[in-house]
Amino acid sequence: MADDIEAMKAKAQAFVETLQDEICAALEAHEPEARFREDLWQREGGGGGRTRVLAGEVFEKAGVNTSAVFGELEPDFASKLQGEGTTFFATGISLVLHPTNPHLPTTHANWRYIVQGEDAWFGGGADLTPYYLYDEDAAGFHAALKAGCDAHDASYYPDFKARCDAYFHLPHRGEHRGVGGIFYDGLKPGEGPGMGKSLEDLFAFMRSSGNSFLSAYLPIVERRKDTPYTEAQRAWQLHRRGRYVEFNLVYDRGTLFGLKTGGRIESILMSLPPVVHFPYAPTPDGPEEERLLDVVKNARDWA
Amino acid sequence: MADDIEAMKAKAQAFVETLQDEICAALEAHEPEARFREDLWQREGGGGGRTRVLAGEVFEKAGVNTSAVFGELEPDFASKLQGEGTTFFATGISLVLHPTNPHLPTTHANWRYIVQGEDAWFGGGADLTPYYLYDEDAAGFHAALKAGCDAHDASYYPDFKARCDAYFHLPHRGEHRGVGGIFYDGLKPGEGPGMGKSLEDLFAFMRSSGNSFLSAYLPIVERRKDTPYTEAQRAWQLHRRGRYVEFNLVYDRGTLFGLKTGGRIESILMSLPPVVHFPYAPTPDGPEEERLLDVVKNARDWA
Repeated sequence: MADDIEAMKAKAQAFVETLQDEICAALEAHEPEARFREDLWQREGGGGGRTRVLAGEVFEKAGVNTSAVFGELEPDFASKLQGEGTTFFATGISLVLHPTNPHLPTTHANWRYIVQGEDAWFGGGADLTPYYLYDEDAAGFHAALKAGCDAHDASYYPDFKARCDAYFHLPHRGEHRGVGGIFYDGLKPGEGPGMGKSLEDLFAFMRSSGNSFLSAYLPIVERRKDTPYTEAQRAWQLHRRGRYVEFNLVYDRGTLFGLKTGGRIESILMSLPPVVHFPYAPTPDGPEEERLLDVVKNARDWA
Repeated sequence: MADDIEAMKAKAQAFVETLQDEICAALEAHEPEARFREDLWQREGGGGGRTRVLAGEVFEKAGVNTSAVFGELEPDFASKLQGEGTTFFATGISLVLHPTNPHLPTTHANWRYIVQGEDAWFGGGADLTPYYLYDEDAAGFHAALKAGCDAHDASYYPDFKARCDAYFHLPHRGEHRGVGGIFYDGLKPGEGPGMGKSLEDLFAFMRSSGNSFLSAYLPIVERRKDTPYTEAQRAWQLHRRGRYVEFNLVYDRGTLFGLKTGGRIESILMSLPPVVHFPYAPTPDGPEEERLLDVVKNARDWA
């Protein structure tokens, strides 16, 4: 394996662990009492992770996990990945925040570095799932992610924004998961959006993108966490959370990767909302709920 | 297509629709007020269905659906099925009952007749998912299903009981969905368990098996529907319902078949529990919860 690919393993792991510390501290600052519980785990085949979960007032369930795992992939599964060979290394941060208040959107973010055989690539992204649509929140979230992209390459945001819309999509519903964000995978030197870049360049992008998350999401927390809400609005949130479950269990490649590589089940499925309603054939309650349905059915440009 | 395969379409459809009427009436008899809501739907590619859902006191969510759909399969999907060709017909009854009381188990049952190209086969089964284990309930459920099998062929129950344990299994959890029941698919004349049988014989089995459902489940309703329960027991039920969601969305072939053949989403996903909790890394509360975990991890003989 090339020296730079090998050396990047420790650098990428150190970055995601530092980012985890920063994000957890920023979220705890909004919680009057709750603190993250940390579970360290080891993977039988090699490596392990640092799972942090909080059940609080502002965040009904917040999971901010890092892991660094390595070993052998099952050949069937390895052939479905982008690289060649069955040896792998993967390190990343993955977070899902499910707020209590239906006016405060759920968010997910993930940044990772993966080595398979002689190949190595980066992936990542962040996306926002509102229950009530505030244009200001969606636009601000996208603007901050765009700034994190533009710091590295002005062509990235439009490309990765479109990929996010395509990826976080429930075909059987004809709905996106929310208002999108950015998503990229298989980012490597000398190919596609990695053309003309070194592994070190792409790691710089991972950092600027990962570091943009808090500036994308925290302003929304500040604006919405204390917005009064009705029981009907809470019921709408609990019902819409069902779509999050459908996406993660039916379509999400990250969830599949985790389950197939023998990841820690509780860490992978921390992404599922704490309380979910699956009512039969609910109808939207009013114009604000209709407005949300319209935006998840028809992806918009926000930045 | 052989005449008997063609003629069976209407006979099978009539049977599942009559069974739907009987089951709905029997369940309503336990509800002080709630009645089934019926939604008739048409499938764009051909056929339609009769979805009946009830939200009551005893049954927090009960769905008892029939459908008869036909048309063309996508070639990719057709090649994954058992038959050859892309034309299909499918009729069946599918029910999932999620009781309110954690002492009353969730149950699922399904009987179907499927034609693909020149091939035709039967499938079906019923299984029980307790939150608290009463040996008497599991044994009675299995005994009634066994009687429905034995009326036709004494070799069926042991075979289909084992298939049920194998099918309703969550590999990533190392757990079965509950205490099992029976499950069969691809049952056709002259092959495997259909050896020496005519299509008419196998339809007789569909009827005796389908008709055994109420005698398997209703006695449990009568015994458990009024059992007092604590908040902690209800919380345990809501958490365990998460496993039902995991199984149905990640593994269930029936759910996949429905989504891929353009079935009605709300009818397919009526199987999901009305309220679910996904707590992070919960630990069992006591010996009764541990006893349930033991039985879902180690399938038992009940009949």
